[in-house]
Amino acid sequence: MELTDFKAAIEPYKVLFFDAFGVLKTYNALIPGIENTFAYLRETGKEFYVLTNDASRSPKQLADSYHKLGLYEIKPETIVSSGMLAREYLQNKVKHGVVAYLGTKNSAHYLETAGLKALSINDLSLENVDEVSALVFMDDEGFDWDTDLNKTVNLLRKKTIPVIVANTDRTYPMGRKTVAIAIGAVAKMIEDIVGKQFMRFGKPDAQMFIFACQQIQRNRGIDRNDILMVGDTLTTDILGGNKFGLDTALVLTGNTRLEDVDMKIRSTGIIPTYVCESAVVK
Amino acid sequence: MELTDFKAAIEPYKVLFFDAFGVLKTYNALIPGIENTFAYLRETGKEFYVLTNDASRSPKQLADSYHKLGLYEIKPETIVSSGMLAREYLQNKVKHGVVAYLGTKNSAHYLETAGLKALSINDLSLENVDEVSALVFMDDEGFDWDTDLNKTVNLLRKKTIPVIVANTDRTYPMGRKTVAIAIGAVAKMIEDIVGKQFMRFGKPDAQMFIFACQQIQRNRGIDRNDILMVGDTLTTDILGGNKFGLDTALVLTGNTRLEDVDMKIRSTGIIPTYVCESAVVK
Amino acid sequence: MELTDFKAAIEPYKVLFFDAFGVLKTYNALIPGIENTFAYLRETGKEFYVLTNDASRSPKQLADSYHKLGLYEIKPETIVSSGMLAREYLQNKVKHGVVAYLGTKNSAHYLETAGLKALSINDLSLENVDEVSALVFMDDEGFDWDTDLNKTVNLLRKKTIPVIVANTDRTYPMGRKTVAIAIGAVAKMIEDIVGKQFMRFGKPDAQMFIFACQQIQRNRGIDRNDILMVGDTLTTDILGGNKFGLDTALVLTGNTRLEDVDMKIRSTGIIPTYVCESAVVK
Amino acid sequence: MELTDFKAAIEPYKVLFFDAFGVLKTYNALIPGIENTFAYLRETGKEFYVLTNDASRSPKQLADSYHKLGLYEIKPETIVSSGMLAREYLQNKVKHGVVAYLGTKNSAHYLETAGLKALSINDLSLENVDEVSALVFMDDEGFDWDTDLNKTVNLLRKKTIPVIVANTDRTYPMGRKTVAIAIGAVAKMIEDIVGKQFMRFGKPDAQMFIFACQQIQRNRGIDRNDILMVGDTLTTDILGGNKFGLDTALVLTGNTRLEDVDMKIRSTGIIPTYVCESAVVK
Repeated sequence: MELTDFKAAIEPYKVLFFDAFGVLKTYNALIPGIENTFAYLRETGKEFYVLTNDASRSPKQLADSYHKLGLYEIKPETIVSSGMLAREYLQNKVKHGVVAYLGTKNSAHYLETAGLKALSINDLSLENVDEVSALVFMDDEGFDWDTDLNKTVNLLRKKTIPVIVANTDRTYPMGRKTVAIAIGAVAKMIEDIVGKQFMRFGKPDAQMFIFACQQIQRNRGIDRNDILMVGDTLTTDILGGNKFGLDTALVLTGNTRLEDVDMKIRSTGIIPTYVCESAVVK
Repeated sequence: MELTDFKAAIEPYKVLFFDAFGVLKTYNALIPGIENTFAYLRETGKEFYVLTNDASRSPKQLADSYHKLGLYEIKPETIVSSGMLAREYLQNKVKHGVVAYLGTKNSAHYLETAGLKALSINDLSLENVDEVSALVFMDDEGFDWDTDLNKTVNLLRKKTIPVIVANTDRTYPMGRKTVAIAIGAVAKMIEDIVGKQFMRFGKPDAQMFIFACQQIQRNRGIDRNDILMVGDTLTTDILGGNKFGLDTALVLTGNTRLEDVDMKIRSTGIIPTYVCESAVVK
Repeated sequence: MELTDFKAAIEPYKVLFFDAFGVLKTYNALIPGIENTFAYLRETGKEFYVLTNDASRSPKQLADSYHKLGLYEIKPETIVSSGMLAREYLQNKVKHGVVAYLGTKNSAHYLETAGLKALSINDLSLENVDEVSALVFMDDEGFDWDTDLNKTVNLLRKKTIPVIVANTDRTYPMGRKTVAIAIGAVAKMIEDIVGKQFMRFGKPDAQMFIFACQQIQRNRGIDRNDILMVGDTLTTDILGGNKFGLDTALVLTGNTRLEDVDMKIRSTGIIPTYVCESAVVK
Repeated sequence: MELTDFKAAIEPYKVLFFDAFGVLKTYNALIPGIENTFAYLRETGKEFYVLTNDASRSPKQLADSYHKLGLYEIKPETIVSSGMLAREYLQNKVKHGVVAYLGTKNSAHYLETAGLKALSINDLSLENVDEVSALVFMDDEGFDWDTDLNKTVNLLRKKTIPVIVANTDRTYPMGRKTVAIAIGAVAKMIEDIVGKQFMRFGKPDAQMFIFACQQIQRNRGIDRNDILMVGDTLTTDILGGNKFGLDTALVLTGNTRLEDVDMKIRSTGIIPTYVCESAVVK
């Protein structure tokens, strides 16, 4: 697989979709030089969105986290998170009642702005589940794994309610060499145990891409050929972009390393349009 | 689960999405009385689309098959098939070269109208695969299972190309009590053998519903709350509709029987908005 | 499915294999009348073994737990636990070094009697894993789920070592209506995350049955036709017994209820030789 | 991973277990020099068995196939095939009636020597299934994939009977670079479609190894430490041997290549005791 210069790769497109982790930032810092890319986008009038399987915080809080690292171009309205899809679903389908959730207090933002009463699994009593109308897996923090996962299983054995998974990832980086179990892996374990089908929102599912496209199309005539999806993971970013009909660029600053890229493409059968060293414009 | 009268259920909606098998027809006939439903829709100005995981024939051929059974309201432009999604993908992403396919000559329609050269797996030689740029699973007929499935495995071992599955179903009805293996099950077996990820189009995936919504939105302002999805299968029709934020009606003339409906809803956790005896307006 | 009287069912056999939970006891008590069964076995000279997917305690501790409930016939040497198989494996294959484990201090018994140094995952430091030569999932208690599951994932990313699962169950009863997540479900989640193959010991795997047969055959000529496996779960007890060539009796005092038995046999395709109300001899 | 000389590796063992394909022979020839190994075994009085997931032919026919290639040491009584395990199961558990099978006429040997009436799926009529008491997947040849796989699905929808899979492999080599779909992959597809649990016999399951050990132990006191399992596939030969407590040697003449061996061991977590270039004694 030949490497393409990132600036050359993005030249034909009007809109870029970026994954966050491994493309714009690592666990504790920006990818060095990534601010050049955003300066170049502004200069050339290219539009961008950040598509992230992260429901732990609101778009405003996510944008703030980039500002703290020195990247000011990322505004709340340029962020499309899997939490926003979960919220849209809850607004359309659940409408009322109490929504139990696994996640931080910040992640409850998505539930409350849907006009629902959010109840942390931590505060739920199994004796009193009559008003619980849905369960949402938001984030891996904010509850006690030792007791609340058993409580979750017993809630689902007691009541047939829709279950939503707002982050489908299995792990996320914790440090330079260590990872933590993400809520997507926990949701999968509990789905296997109770034998029911949960609804998942996030890449590689098409809804993430549609949501972003709707943001764009509200104003102007941009079609799929004008969009490039940039990501570091074949099985979510690139598979999702490909399936939605977008061109895709795999960058090598996150989950996929230069020495593995050929083997991984061959073994998964997921083929990006471009492979670039990073998303940095030099 | 209480049964709702179908006419009462559809009253609040402007648009109906119908599944085909088990809702409009069985393996060899229309659901008795279904023509009343379409007369009623015309009368009341409700719009409708047929969403089907069937890529064996073109929309025109599918519409003709209803006309032969005496249902004339179903026009080619009211049909959204998984074959149309596969075609859209191929147009956006593959663009040129030869596309190998498993399926009938009729199913090749979707490939040829995408401007691609379609080559039946039957006619493919493993010695000569340089120009093959994609593989599509369209239908379970039109090739020789004894030899062409092995050929398919060896093609995918030899070349890394995108693989598209245009019908995700595992079986379809062959008679009153017998079923046949659908191409979706064959594709799953081959995916497991070669260990690569195929791209699937069809319910319950969101793209099917988006495609239908785009047909509608071209002209007028209809939103998701105005649409009811009608289907006979929880894991495709109802799950897909739910996840896309639509209200859903489960009918009992196909895969789901009255005596199983409560157990199936409880065991899968997939909850329709309504359960109706059939899609017949009396 | 016709019910068979338990006394009549066991008449032709010289040896009985019993599952523990749901057959001999519930979460907090003996199955009422089960002591009659053991009196009858003694009277008629039938031999028995208890085969249990429970590695939380030593055979002696397991036997003691029956004695406390008033059942004195169950001796340590009549218990075959999945922990004993894990120990046999470790003795044959690992031989030296430190074995990290998830489980209670009691469960470490199986590791220490194999001549190995057992180290709770709780006490493991990721900075110091050079001497760790295997990892064993024993029991769901004795560690901190909030931190030690992440530690487990990172240990397996850092070192390629054999991983043993000494209890394959997904849940166990906690009360009359509630369950707890068993270590088998946790092991499955972590296996999916790290993408490696763990070694599982316990029913329905043949090794459990072989181990019990070896205990018998040491002394006398009993063959498989003389043995009846008694259990309450189709997918472990009955499947395992069937596959090993034993006759099997499904009892209805645990996981399988009278009203579901026909449906479950039909839907899983696992067919017991007998179905009995309970293992109680009246 | 350091390579060990095969002669040195086998020195401490009294008994060798060989896999067939990739260790003793390729699709059409012996591994060059393998006859030296058997001369050496005879000379040094080491015993051996061939453990093969192949139920297409009787042990006598399998032995004959080696004789034709010039290897005369392999006698029918040194072969342990997954077909023999299926036969043992049928003798113990099915006992009477007609057993339907997918496979060649030769594979029916295992059914007929169990005293059962074997009926090819080819000759089965769905109108007449009253006497069918089991179904066995033996081999991928001897039936018509186009029609008989559908017949198999409908048989299992009509009758709840035990289903046995006598070869768990997914593919087998057809030529130097091509493979064919093995009956194990077909059985998996049909198991998924009908949603029932089939019984599988073959490596890496323990029963294969037990069966071989029983052959040995009839006469003399050999224990597991005296046995080395030699195979070319981590996920069957080596995993199975490891789990049964045997030492294992991975050879590089079949499924695993020198350049992949480190990566495969790391990614699967299955660790052989030795890695040898081949099973040839020089």
